[in-house]
Amino acid sequence: MQALVFNGPGQKRLEDRPIPELEAPGDAIVKVSRTTICGTDLHILKGDVPTCEPGRILGHEGVGVVDKVGAGVTAFRRGDHVLISCITACGRCEYCRRGMYSHCTTGGWILGNRIDGTQAEYVRIPHADTSLYPIPAGADEEAQVMLSDILPTGLECGVLNGKVQPGASVAIVGSGPIGLAALLTAQFYAPAQVIMLDSDSNRLEVARRFGATALVNATGDDAVKAVLQLTSGRGVDTAIEAVGMPASFATCQDIVAPGGVIANIGVHGTKADLHLERLWDRNIAITTRLVDTVTTPMLLKTVQSGKLDPAKLITHRFPLDRIVEAYATFARAANTGALKVVVTP
Amino acid sequence: MQALVFNGPGQKRLEDRPIPELEAPGDAIVKVSRTTICGTDLHILKGDVPTCEPGRILGHEGVGVVDKVGAGVTAFRRGDHVLISCITACGRCEYCRRGMYSHCTTGGWILGNRIDGTQAEYVRIPHADTSLYPIPAGADEEAQVMLSDILPTGLECGVLNGKVQPGASVAIVGSGPIGLAALLTAQFYAPAQVIMLDSDSNRLEVARRFGATALVNATGDDAVKAVLQLTSGRGVDTAIEAVGMPASFATCQDIVAPGGVIANIGVHGTKADLHLERLWDRNIAITTRLVDTVTTPMLLKTVQSGKLDPAKLITHRFPLDRIVEAYATFARAANTGALKVVVTP
Amino acid sequence: MQALVFNGPGQKRLEDRPIPELEAPGDAIVKVSRTTICGTDLHILKGDVPTCEPGRILGHEGVGVVDKVGAGVTAFRRGDHVLISCITACGRCEYCRRGMYSHCTTGGWILGNRIDGTQAEYVRIPHADTSLYPIPAGADEEAQVMLSDILPTGLECGVLNGKVQPGASVAIVGSGPIGLAALLTAQFYAPAQVIMLDSDSNRLEVARRFGATALVNATGDDAVKAVLQLTSGRGVDTAIEAVGMPASFATCQDIVAPGGVIANIGVHGTKADLHLERLWDRNIAITTRLVDTVTTPMLLKTVQSGKLDPAKLITHRFPLDRIVEAYATFARAANTGALKVVVTP
Amino acid sequence: MQALVFNGPGQKRLEDRPIPELEAPGDAIVKVSRTTICGTDLHILKGDVPTCEPGRILGHEGVGVVDKVGAGVTAFRRGDHVLISCITACGRCEYCRRGMYSHCTTGGWILGNRIDGTQAEYVRIPHADTSLYPIPAGADEEAQVMLSDILPTGLECGVLNGKVQPGASVAIVGSGPIGLAALLTAQFYAPAQVIMLDSDSNRLEVARRFGATALVNATGDDAVKAVLQLTSGRGVDTAIEAVGMPASFATCQDIVAPGGVIANIGVHGTKADLHLERLWDRNIAITTRLVDTVTTPMLLKTVQSGKLDPAKLITHRFPLDRIVEAYATFARAANTGALKVVVTP
Repeated sequence: MQALVFNGPGQKRLEDRPIPELEAPGDAIVKVSRTTICGTDLHILKGDVPTCEPGRILGHEGVGVVDKVGAGVTAFRRGDHVLISCITACGRCEYCRRGMYSHCTTGGWILGNRIDGTQAEYVRIPHADTSLYPIPAGADEEAQVMLSDILPTGLECGVLNGKVQPGASVAIVGSGPIGLAALLTAQFYAPAQVIMLDSDSNRLEVARRFGATALVNATGDDAVKAVLQLTSGRGVDTAIEAVGMPASFATCQDIVAPGGVIANIGVHGTKADLHLERLWDRNIAITTRLVDTVTTPMLLKTVQSGKLDPAKLITHRFPLDRIVEAYATFARAANTGALKVVVTP
Repeated sequence: MQALVFNGPGQKRLEDRPIPELEAPGDAIVKVSRTTICGTDLHILKGDVPTCEPGRILGHEGVGVVDKVGAGVTAFRRGDHVLISCITACGRCEYCRRGMYSHCTTGGWILGNRIDGTQAEYVRIPHADTSLYPIPAGADEEAQVMLSDILPTGLECGVLNGKVQPGASVAIVGSGPIGLAALLTAQFYAPAQVIMLDSDSNRLEVARRFGATALVNATGDDAVKAVLQLTSGRGVDTAIEAVGMPASFATCQDIVAPGGVIANIGVHGTKADLHLERLWDRNIAITTRLVDTVTTPMLLKTVQSGKLDPAKLITHRFPLDRIVEAYATFARAANTGALKVVVTP
Repeated sequence: MQALVFNGPGQKRLEDRPIPELEAPGDAIVKVSRTTICGTDLHILKGDVPTCEPGRILGHEGVGVVDKVGAGVTAFRRGDHVLISCITACGRCEYCRRGMYSHCTTGGWILGNRIDGTQAEYVRIPHADTSLYPIPAGADEEAQVMLSDILPTGLECGVLNGKVQPGASVAIVGSGPIGLAALLTAQFYAPAQVIMLDSDSNRLEVARRFGATALVNATGDDAVKAVLQLTSGRGVDTAIEAVGMPASFATCQDIVAPGGVIANIGVHGTKADLHLERLWDRNIAITTRLVDTVTTPMLLKTVQSGKLDPAKLITHRFPLDRIVEAYATFARAANTGALKVVVTP
Repeated sequence: MQALVFNGPGQKRLEDRPIPELEAPGDAIVKVSRTTICGTDLHILKGDVPTCEPGRILGHEGVGVVDKVGAGVTAFRRGDHVLISCITACGRCEYCRRGMYSHCTTGGWILGNRIDGTQAEYVRIPHADTSLYPIPAGADEEAQVMLSDILPTGLECGVLNGKVQPGASVAIVGSGPIGLAALLTAQFYAPAQVIMLDSDSNRLEVARRFGATALVNATGDDAVKAVLQLTSGRGVDTAIEAVGMPASFATCQDIVAPGGVIANIGVHGTKADLHLERLWDRNIAITTRLVDTVTTPMLLKTVQSGKLDPAKLITHRFPLDRIVEAYATFARAANTGALKVVVTP
């Protein structure tokens, strides 16, 4: 089968690989029908993710059809149309029982990282019963791919951790795909204000179409000033960090209101300054989270009922044999306007 | 009347001052019968609290008897025995309605800071209806002084923000009075482990008597190693910062388990490093809080029912005319063994 | 001034009364600019509310302009445009501190019940600081009247107690004004399904326009069957009782899913059967609540930001001198199609 | 092997049965080392549980040693010392993912009900990975049997649903084993008052030893009066129903304070009156629950750390060949003083 293989920093290639086999009773083999590319895949290619070794098939998002199941799988069988969660969950360990699938002792984020991933014709899914979700009949398959990672990440790490409430004010620092996913799911809770910050006017324009109530095309002190002005000097109840840089995290500290939350989504490569000398008495919370995908069932229902249209995040489509081109399009988003790029084996 | 006056950094003196008068309809004048000294008073004397100007009477803790009330006061009258909250709350503003009395727009921590405080024979209490609490008949007055600040601070900023739960593991970094207050109130929630960290053996010994399940007499990497060993390498569910230094905050980051909380109580004078490059995917929360004293009614009930004995925090007693000596005893705690020092006008 | 006076069961009359005077330092006198009629007013007229004695001016909803304030009032002054909460809250007692204003020991629902109400040219508001809310400049005054009672009631007693969540299923039994208020505010939380039940086709049609996803024009077993069919036999996550009769409460017990909530809003005159022999192991909750109006600040923000348009509940308008006709229109809603009837002094 | 078999209402017999075999990949066979008898077993013998058919081996509590595991079991192997949960959970279905194991679509309470149970030498446990718990080395096996059902039931259905809080007041109606389990676990949360109600002086005396702060040896109106007197006329924050009769449920309605919770644990055979005409505006919640055993990990930690000593619930011990005598002792608790009776194969 065809598969996109990581061959060390800066190197990826579409290669021919054997179709994966069942290895444990809980495994399923899924024939991938749609996959996509994540910002984290670019991190791997930069060499930032040491757990991902050369030779690994990339990709942790996808939908497909079950091809084979192990003896221990009870919830799925050959032919089932399924959503692949980016997080593998055993459903049994201490963390899974607490709903913290991200820290599953034999799972977590392993697809396209510690084990071969979804940017291929077939993928092996361990703990299939608790790591796959049935796709409702008649659902738009492309829209479903957005539920593998980006939408639960925006919702769980940003909106839920950020305790977005009706009437509240929210600022999302970063209007890339993940910031936009937070914007879309924040609207589940009817906030009065959702202010989007980015230095890319194009992405801000998308944010406006997706429901942002105000746009801030600035960085640093000017961005802070703008947000404070929009909130009568008070700051926002929820500041969502969707970039992963010390500067954007600093902005969040400057715009959060007393009693508010800074919900970090960004993947950070270095430490940041925490201004406890100003924040110790501000009654705030700062949260971090690797997505648990515990909200996948909720998201499936909101998509099915039309409360959420995830397909609008998709800007480009490629067949698997042009996936290298798809990566290039996704990586140069400032020029291509790419948000999510769907790849079809 | 006699009153302890702050005369600028490093300078305090017992002076003769006029008895305060009612200034607003919501005010009460309270004749102070017991007060105490807080670590924050030492901060003021170091010059760290710019809102506290020379000439200010210090002190934000106390109990006493109501002497006069303004026309708008309905809950108290002359002769009532009352607990003075360290936080003044109007009960009306947006923050008070949310239970965030610490950020009351016309109150918050103002006593012994922006207005004259309790280390005097009389004190004026604004917003008396919502800033005083009736002391139950027969209650131990000394024990009640511990409810002005230190116990709600340990409980709210440490235990409640830290989400201490039955069976959980807790580490408290710092075994001074505030760390011990967190230790006492953590036991409301039956945690399996409460590990106390300090470099002062004497304070750790007190912690053992107060219910600590393990003591760590170390700092830095050795302290981290000890806590990890005590938790099977997993770290603690709740790490309470009760010092206010970058180093102790760093320890908290090293010992918190995935899914855990770092609850900051310490007053910080400088920024700290936040290791987002390690924590971004650990599903943790970091909280800060100036005490709101919303738990005062709960604490009054736990004391009255014998679930909590706050008087054991008291190590020394002085009359008001020896308050300068009381400060010296409190400031040199390493030598004197002082925890809380009660001062009686 | 003109005022609608309750003169015993079945008897009401527009009478001439003296303008009310300040009685306590916390009082305000408000010149009423808009009021409305509540289902509870009809209950009083039936003689169902013994606390409301003959001679009482009716009405507990309204907006107006502050005319006088007592010496203890700090948040408002003459000329302020204000929303009158149906619940009077001292902000000081144990219940107010817990956000349970409905049970304020010197307030609660007293307007137009234990003291004179708002269906008059002027009204005295006790505890004005915590029982009035500033109306934002430029707000639609008619829309604001809906925030006195009906919208917080639908939201607090129905939606919040019912724990409505994104993707969830909700059934509202009763599509009168209060059921419709629950429907409007349920949409703050993006439920996948909101099923409205009523035997009045007209009201169901309104419900459809207000966002209901399904309508059930039936009662008893047929209604239950219809709801179960709409939920694949599972029942609803939230069943909101908005009628106040044993039969409608029975329907809620038949349609609630395991793990669900029955949130009662209805005012009940008799006991109901609780089928514990079927429900003891269903992991459900049943909640009751007199509105606390703690969500008023949130509702003001959602209205101001356009997330909620309460004015669409208003179907009729009358001047105060025709209030008796307004009552007749409201009471014969099945014929008149009346939802909320605004009365203007 | 020996097994206690239900042969229809009123009929049970110790019989010889074949050792159970693995039937599905997720099964385990456990050699039972301790089991016990539950009030529910008596209900089955009265013919109250139609899902339990003649020929069934009774019992849903126990500890033992794993003898065999199916191919899909990954968390346990032969020789492991395990606690058997009374609730079988697949860990995969919608309910299990929400922590509502009681409603697992292929599990729930099936042991000794729909499938053969634990009052035997061996038992087959479906979904073993998520229905067994490892017993810590050195743990007291007898104490662990109390974690199969009675302690999680008291904690989840009574204490957690009842939202017991530090300083709060609790009344537990019924001082049988389940009421006492609620009493023991309520103390995790430091309530100020735990009032136990029962008409059996002996059980009340046990309750006093287990930590009750007040005892009410009365029923009906006198019991209500006594509780109101103990709570200054206010009623209790949490009323736990631990009997399962309309009369005890009525008592709960009479003693719950505004804003309080009635947490039902009792198994009810008939409907009860719900006095909505008095309760509709009291802001209360009524909860029902079949135990989910989601708190088993927490309980294991509290037992291991010495916060809870469940063994004190055990009053009698019998070998399996005298289990019929054990049932007689348990059923005549008023005479025998039996609480929990441990049976050893």
